[in-house]
Amino acid sequence: MNTENKKVSIFALGGINEIGKNMYVIQSDDDIVVIDCGSKFPDETLLGIDLIIQDISYLLENADKVRALIVTHGHEDHIGGIPYFLKQLNIPIYATNLTLGLIEIKLKEHGLLRNTQLFLIDSESKLRLGTIKTSFFRVSHSIPDCLGVAFHTSQGTIVHTGDFKFDMTPVDEQNPDIHKMAELGQNGVLLLLSESTNAERPGSTPSERKIADHVEEAFRKAPRKIFISTFASNVHRVQTIVNAAIKTNRKLALLGRSMVNVVSVAMERGYLSIPEGMLVDQNEINTMNPENIVILCTGSQGEPMAALSRLASSSFRQVEVLPEDTVIFAAGPIPGNEKSITRIIDNLYTLGAHVIYGSGNVTGMHVSGHACQEELKLMLTLMKPKYFIPIHGEYRMLHHHQLLAESVGVERDNIFIIQNGDVVDIVNEEAIQTRSIEAGNVFVDGFGIGDVGEIILRDRKLLSEDGMLVIVTTLSKANGKIISGPDTISRGFVYGPESEALINEVNQNVRSTVSKTRDTNRNQRVLKQNIKKSLEKLLYSRTKRKPMILPIIIEV
Amino acid sequence: MNTENKKVSIFALGGINEIGKNMYVIQSDDDIVVIDCGSKFPDETLLGIDLIIQDISYLLENADKVRALIVTHGHEDHIGGIPYFLKQLNIPIYATNLTLGLIEIKLKEHGLLRNTQLFLIDSESKLRLGTIKTSFFRVSHSIPDCLGVAFHTSQGTIVHTGDFKFDMTPVDEQNPDIHKMAELGQNGVLLLLSESTNAERPGSTPSERKIADHVEEAFRKAPRKIFISTFASNVHRVQTIVNAAIKTNRKLALLGRSMVNVVSVAMERGYLSIPEGMLVDQNEINTMNPENIVILCTGSQGEPMAALSRLASSSFRQVEVLPEDTVIFAAGPIPGNEKSITRIIDNLYTLGAHVIYGSGNVTGMHVSGHACQEELKLMLTLMKPKYFIPIHGEYRMLHHHQLLAESVGVERDNIFIIQNGDVVDIVNEEAIQTRSIEAGNVFVDGFGIGDVGEIILRDRKLLSEDGMLVIVTTLSKANGKIISGPDTISRGFVYGPESEALINEVNQNVRSTVSKTRDTNRNQRVLKQNIKKSLEKLLYSRTKRKPMILPIIIEV
Repeated sequence: MNTENKKVSIFALGGINEIGKNMYVIQSDDDIVVIDCGSKFPDETLLGIDLIIQDISYLLENADKVRALIVTHGHEDHIGGIPYFLKQLNIPIYATNLTLGLIEIKLKEHGLLRNTQLFLIDSESKLRLGTIKTSFFRVSHSIPDCLGVAFHTSQGTIVHTGDFKFDMTPVDEQNPDIHKMAELGQNGVLLLLSESTNAERPGSTPSERKIADHVEEAFRKAPRKIFISTFASNVHRVQTIVNAAIKTNRKLALLGRSMVNVVSVAMERGYLSIPEGMLVDQNEINTMNPENIVILCTGSQGEPMAALSRLASSSFRQVEVLPEDTVIFAAGPIPGNEKSITRIIDNLYTLGAHVIYGSGNVTGMHVSGHACQEELKLMLTLMKPKYFIPIHGEYRMLHHHQLLAESVGVERDNIFIIQNGDVVDIVNEEAIQTRSIEAGNVFVDGFGIGDVGEIILRDRKLLSEDGMLVIVTTLSKANGKIISGPDTISRGFVYGPESEALINEVNQNVRSTVSKTRDTNRNQRVLKQNIKKSLEKLLYSRTKRKPMILPIIIEV
Repeated sequence: MNTENKKVSIFALGGINEIGKNMYVIQSDDDIVVIDCGSKFPDETLLGIDLIIQDISYLLENADKVRALIVTHGHEDHIGGIPYFLKQLNIPIYATNLTLGLIEIKLKEHGLLRNTQLFLIDSESKLRLGTIKTSFFRVSHSIPDCLGVAFHTSQGTIVHTGDFKFDMTPVDEQNPDIHKMAELGQNGVLLLLSESTNAERPGSTPSERKIADHVEEAFRKAPRKIFISTFASNVHRVQTIVNAAIKTNRKLALLGRSMVNVVSVAMERGYLSIPEGMLVDQNEINTMNPENIVILCTGSQGEPMAALSRLASSSFRQVEVLPEDTVIFAAGPIPGNEKSITRIIDNLYTLGAHVIYGSGNVTGMHVSGHACQEELKLMLTLMKPKYFIPIHGEYRMLHHHQLLAESVGVERDNIFIIQNGDVVDIVNEEAIQTRSIEAGNVFVDGFGIGDVGEIILRDRKLLSEDGMLVIVTTLSKANGKIISGPDTISRGFVYGPESEALINEVNQNVRSTVSKTRDTNRNQRVLKQNIKKSLEKLLYSRTKRKPMILPIIIEV
């Protein structure tokens, strides 16, 4: 292969030093291929933000070179950004059957389905995207139909694992393509990008199949209605729940929009088998014998608007959790969600329900979808790459993945711990990391994409802590004296009759500032600043709070 | 004993259905004794709130009957509310030596030390508080000098366990008074109040002593400086760290105000033994051989202002974490703190440090201070109470504690799962729960105690999500026409030149509302409402956001 003057570049626009908004990019001279386009949920410091997506400036500047978006699987952190991406750059999307189904739901919601080019691939597909040849291999994960990707470039083969575990006994019997992986490794992998989510965890992740017995046992013991909650996208687990319901002579109802959506896509496309007549409408639940119904619902992460949360607070319209009902959490808590989940558990116990929860080890109702250390080492061993970039994880996960790679023989100098935007260039089959391109967080707030920045967030933070105080004063243009006001409006700072004395003091303070300032300076900006400064001091000394102060001066 | 016409009442003013702000009350006719006075940290929904304390209206109404506050141990959730309590009701406080030392730090900060009556007790003390006779027994916990309390009342003996575990090999060799507990049980316990923190966890909590070997081993392996973080109040663990430092020929520096405070109180009062010359000032750290220093610091829970967080972000003035330094988390994460902690771990790895973290089982650097299921059953078995109230826990913990009590023979009907404020009355040695008194959360915000209520919090929430828009318009009193404005001020909603078109639209909308309203109604309140309604609709349709809208009308 002629590699002279050729260059292949690899970088991430999301997914490094974070869990979420995955996007990895391979560029071979004039051809760019994008892998995944996820979104990320904001943490509690990003007040009012709905979603975080990637900064794709680089792709927009090189729009003519971008050949395709390949989507490895249908989780939000891999598909959630697609509608926003397509509004900026309409490129063809390649994904497997179920993944396409889940993408289509999103595109419909955003009115984008008609103008998007969607291409169905499977693990046997081979694509030529510009000069980049692409092949695939099947991996196991907590959603069906997942792919790893191999890019056969001018510099050699670059492999992206997608999210994976090695489940040798998968529920759908679609085993990981371990022989293909071995073959890729045998033929030589120049660079491996492998996911790092569980790189801190020793051992191997148990098979999804392990869950079936636990679910069935819990169903057999349940005296009345069963509510069971899991990730809607975990179609394997939904199938396990369906099977246990069949065995225990129960029908199935679905609660929650995403559960209904995913189940219907998965059934249509043949990933989920539910016997005819087994699904009942939520309206029918109350007419049925409680011993003969399982209610599969969203909300295992404690999401306040999801079905389970509403059931726990008795605010679901048609269905109630009653004493002796059983509620099963068939999902582990995503870090950060623990408190919302325990609040729901507390409420469910208050309603008299039996609640089955706890980590996977305790209840056997959950296993991870990600490879633990022994599996990560297996992937590295199969691929035996010259170069390695740990992806898809926070820094400590990447760090531990690096140690694992070293332990199976990848040279330390050949491992790149990158940031989003850092570019690894491969020239003459040698990789170096010297440059960076623009990358970062773009905030979605309502219809706004990227318009909420640091200033707005800082103001929201100030307002959230101590509220605000608006002071309106009307002055005479002629002599600078107060004609009316000051009038004070508090929101989120103080309230009610108890604050009257303080508000009087505020107004007195403003009057005094107006008269003092009038003697020296008639500039309105100066007056406003003086009012603000003086009030800040007064209010802090009286309340130890720092409301946002907004002086408004009208001159007539 | 003559029990005729006598009544003993028991209730909680905090600590039930929550972890935090513990306060339990025993009333025997005209004598009231309060146990503990903790504070609680607000969750992320209570914007701007500093601390949560109890509603003590009942105690204020019955101030003449309140004989004493007994404090079982020196943790924040048992002492944090004391300054606020004393400002409302100045009653004598009884506590052990170390607990008093920690309370005194608080009283000094609030300028209350001189006017507070503090009484030193130990596990051998016997008090007569009005008609209530009180004795004590020693329990193990994650702070030294902890007590359980027995109240010998007209109705019988009521026992409050305090926070406890059964550590048979405690670091300070102060074993739990298991024989006293047995004796209490043998003589008859009418009612037991026992803590429930770990009631969900099977087995027993390991001894604090287990940690020593792990700490020493980690110290031996550390090539350069060691940073180790734990709860300042865990004096046993601090002693373990001191001992390991001695053995590995390292001196000790302290970082963080609470660490310095607690260590000095614990040394003064004989709970901590640090050889002379071993403590070095933080200024000396950089002058020392990195192999000969251990830095004990606050911040194991990821608190943003604590030492460890500032070290991790390289913003601590005199001390730096450098490559090959070792950082040890010798504390487990309190639920809800996981994300802040992992952010710090990521930063520490970025600095090149070795980081030792993870749950107690993984690193051996942490054990719980609370009894697990087997120990809770042991306490119940020792006390064999007729009646049982599980306390100190969220609902599911109380629920599991109830099941444990049933399993060792307490009758289901004799177990009371109460709410804060629910009263259990004992008359003729029979307990019933029929009434409630006022109880709830009081918010501390700056100097304000209880002045921040639902309206202020609701406004802060609105402001935090989408900010606000103030629109100022000056109208002619004569004809209602606009003289100047509308002028629009946005904070936390939109910002900068991109929002200009929207702001113009807003102003146009206000002009149109003013002119429409003028024709039908000249009432200013009506006009403001119309402006608000019309803008809400406009802004939501344009931005899908809901800022707080504050129309200001000046008439001249």
